[in-house]
Amino acid sequence: MGKADNINYESSLKLYNRAKKVITGGVSRNTIFRRPHPFYVAQAKGSYVTDIDGNTRIDFANNMASLIHGHSHPVIVDAVTEQMQNGTAYTLGSEVEVEFGELLVERNKEFEKIRFVNSGTEAVMSMIKAARAYTGNPKIAKAEGAYHGTYDFAEISQIAEPHNWGDINQPNSVPVTYGTPESVKQDVVVFPYNDIKRTLNLLEANKDELACVLIDPVSHRVGMYPIEEEFLVAIYNWTRKNKVLLVFDEVVTYRVTYSGAQHLYPVKPDMTALGKIIGGGFPVGAIAGDAEIMSVFDPTQKIIKQPHSGTFSANPVTMIAGKTAMQLYDRQAVDDINKMAEIAKHQIREAIQLAHVPVSITGAGSMFRFHFRYKQPRNYRETYQSPEERKVIVDLLDYLFIHENLILINTFACMFATTIKQAEVDRLTQSMYNGLKKYKAAILQFAK
Amino acid sequence: MGKADNINYESSLKLYNRAKKVITGGVSRNTIFRRPHPFYVAQAKGSYVTDIDGNTRIDFANNMASLIHGHSHPVIVDAVTEQMQNGTAYTLGSEVEVEFGELLVERNKEFEKIRFVNSGTEAVMSMIKAARAYTGNPKIAKAEGAYHGTYDFAEISQIAEPHNWGDINQPNSVPVTYGTPESVKQDVVVFPYNDIKRTLNLLEANKDELACVLIDPVSHRVGMYPIEEEFLVAIYNWTRKNKVLLVFDEVVTYRVTYSGAQHLYPVKPDMTALGKIIGGGFPVGAIAGDAEIMSVFDPTQKIIKQPHSGTFSANPVTMIAGKTAMQLYDRQAVDDINKMAEIAKHQIREAIQLAHVPVSITGAGSMFRFHFRYKQPRNYRETYQSPEERKVIVDLLDYLFIHENLILINTFACMFATTIKQAEVDRLTQSMYNGLKKYKAAILQFAK
Repeated sequence: MGKADNINYESSLKLYNRAKKVITGGVSRNTIFRRPHPFYVAQAKGSYVTDIDGNTRIDFANNMASLIHGHSHPVIVDAVTEQMQNGTAYTLGSEVEVEFGELLVERNKEFEKIRFVNSGTEAVMSMIKAARAYTGNPKIAKAEGAYHGTYDFAEISQIAEPHNWGDINQPNSVPVTYGTPESVKQDVVVFPYNDIKRTLNLLEANKDELACVLIDPVSHRVGMYPIEEEFLVAIYNWTRKNKVLLVFDEVVTYRVTYSGAQHLYPVKPDMTALGKIIGGGFPVGAIAGDAEIMSVFDPTQKIIKQPHSGTFSANPVTMIAGKTAMQLYDRQAVDDINKMAEIAKHQIREAIQLAHVPVSITGAGSMFRFHFRYKQPRNYRETYQSPEERKVIVDLLDYLFIHENLILINTFACMFATTIKQAEVDRLTQSMYNGLKKYKAAILQFAK
Repeated sequence: MGKADNINYESSLKLYNRAKKVITGGVSRNTIFRRPHPFYVAQAKGSYVTDIDGNTRIDFANNMASLIHGHSHPVIVDAVTEQMQNGTAYTLGSEVEVEFGELLVERNKEFEKIRFVNSGTEAVMSMIKAARAYTGNPKIAKAEGAYHGTYDFAEISQIAEPHNWGDINQPNSVPVTYGTPESVKQDVVVFPYNDIKRTLNLLEANKDELACVLIDPVSHRVGMYPIEEEFLVAIYNWTRKNKVLLVFDEVVTYRVTYSGAQHLYPVKPDMTALGKIIGGGFPVGAIAGDAEIMSVFDPTQKIIKQPHSGTFSANPVTMIAGKTAMQLYDRQAVDDINKMAEIAKHQIREAIQLAHVPVSITGAGSMFRFHFRYKQPRNYRETYQSPEERKVIVDLLDYLFIHENLILINTFACMFATTIKQAEVDRLTQSMYNGLKKYKAAILQFAK
């Protein structure tokens, strides 16, 4: 396996040299950047992606977890092709936005009402603004390390580091972007994931100013460790007692069950932000939740607390692609993809044992992440990788990409598509074994 | 003209009643809301939109100015259809994002570098964050009344009203959304459009804290009155002297010349936000500008001041649609559409005279807006409509929509597509004449 000797990157390198001249850093998304240069796609079908130099790879990243049916699913392509004959966006409504709304509301009883936007970033931003509009309070609470898009309030402490993350009893509000206003930091309360006592103390100290507690129930960057039920229930009960909203970011995690990761837990979020898979491969976001809270958006109200539009929100292309993708992602498909991921984790755990490396796996449903840890990390500080450790991960991912022809997510994670079957899982297992063996010494260095 | 007696809305009404059950207010975008209910599209080709009850209307709104070639342009549809066979989004790059970057950078020497996002809202947010990251300063200055998307800093004072807009020498920071943190208001300096002395005083008073001055050069909501050169030059010179960035929002106005409204003026913005027409009918945004400033996004830098991604940013569908649309929008096409808008304005001015109503027209290039004013309003407070005046505009727009079968923008504006020709302009002129005559008494009541 691996064909290091006759790999050709020339076309990608040439294109990157053109890209650098016109696009900052050569990429519009840092997620696709890799050294020495990004690679460019010529063709993508199902789980197989061929770059412009003719290298074909199996895709376990699926555009950062957004393609639940892999690439160019024929039923989705056909539906969009037909829709385009009738336009891609109007200053009027379309039937398909209503149908898709009905479909999602049908899937989750928590979704009394929904509203579509263009990205996960927009969904989280609109949801936070809605929580403020409903409660009148300015602050939000979020978990240290959790990624919630690029709205600066949501971004705080996503990449905190040991030198700036501060006391665990009161983690610092560490901005991601230089020049973030001080006031933004002050309006965000950062709590440690899965730490009941410290989190409740922090919430209690800010209770009169909090609009919402923002939770990603299987937070990718925190470590993709499913939130502990006891912790979530404690937060939920606290929010009920203190009239603070509990809002979920399920942009990534909605895939986990037929009705999102929230159905793994005995709590009901007031609102949920959606994105990724619900767009069927097209730009999407959504806010769904309690009808009364969501009424802040309602243009028929006498006072519209949160006037809200968006040129491409609920455009019929995204709606038909999303509706088709989610119809295909029925209970059977959810079961199947989750089982396939279970098989993969089982096989890879065997490979880890054979390779005799201290690697643990976290995740839920069809997503999982690897860590150079003896035990699963339960929070951001346990998950945190030093630059040296990070370098080993990047090297290993590069090895898997270049020599094993696998595309993984740059945090060392896999997000399956329904097109991944036993053959692809076997390739993944064998390649992981090869990679872990190759980097064993380096992995041992960082294992905790 | 007009066929009031046999109009059928039943299907739209029925669909709206379904929509209300699952979507807050029945719409994801308040722009498409109208009383008694929104209308839904069955088919849209070129400048003609047919609703699900079979009513066909001429479209002068073009999805809020985003469809420069009208609906379902065959060349764009074909390009996207082909692209979809090779996927709609990857965790890798695509050649078309580079080609489209090259095309836009080629159009504007001001665009040394570019980066794509998913909406105008995201573009303005990223641009403001970049200005802060580059300068280290927290505040922005924006014009009273100007619309710049739904990022809360950009949103401030977009819908200020006489009871809360405050002293013209220091306009209040009026939030759009309930519960907007006080700190957000404090980090936004609101200035009166086209008022040199007052604006420079306000900038001067905040100069040590300002990251950027945000300008929409032909601000739709301020009145669509092109910014006065003397005013813009004064701001530009002030920013040069004080090392504050001048950033443009050309999401709407990029259509105005081959290289945006900025080419009407002897100033060079440091960055420009783009959106709307550059997506070819698909969700899009972009930030373009000075290479050094834009380097805050650069993942190859040792310190990445503004780490930035986005699941669907630069997705190949939007890129191919946008590239195709902008190739078609060449110098000749820009000349042609602008001439057609000139003809329309000329004809409508004659209709206004014939109808003997005090209506003025503002705008630039292929976009124009009507006001019940003897003279063109030069700023937001002159443009401002009381609820009573607003009601007349809504009634008139409803008349044009229902009885004349024309779709205009809800501010009483037109944004042309290249598919609008003399026949459509004649229909618009005649219908405007009919409408203005019908509402003459009401218009006279509010004329200033």
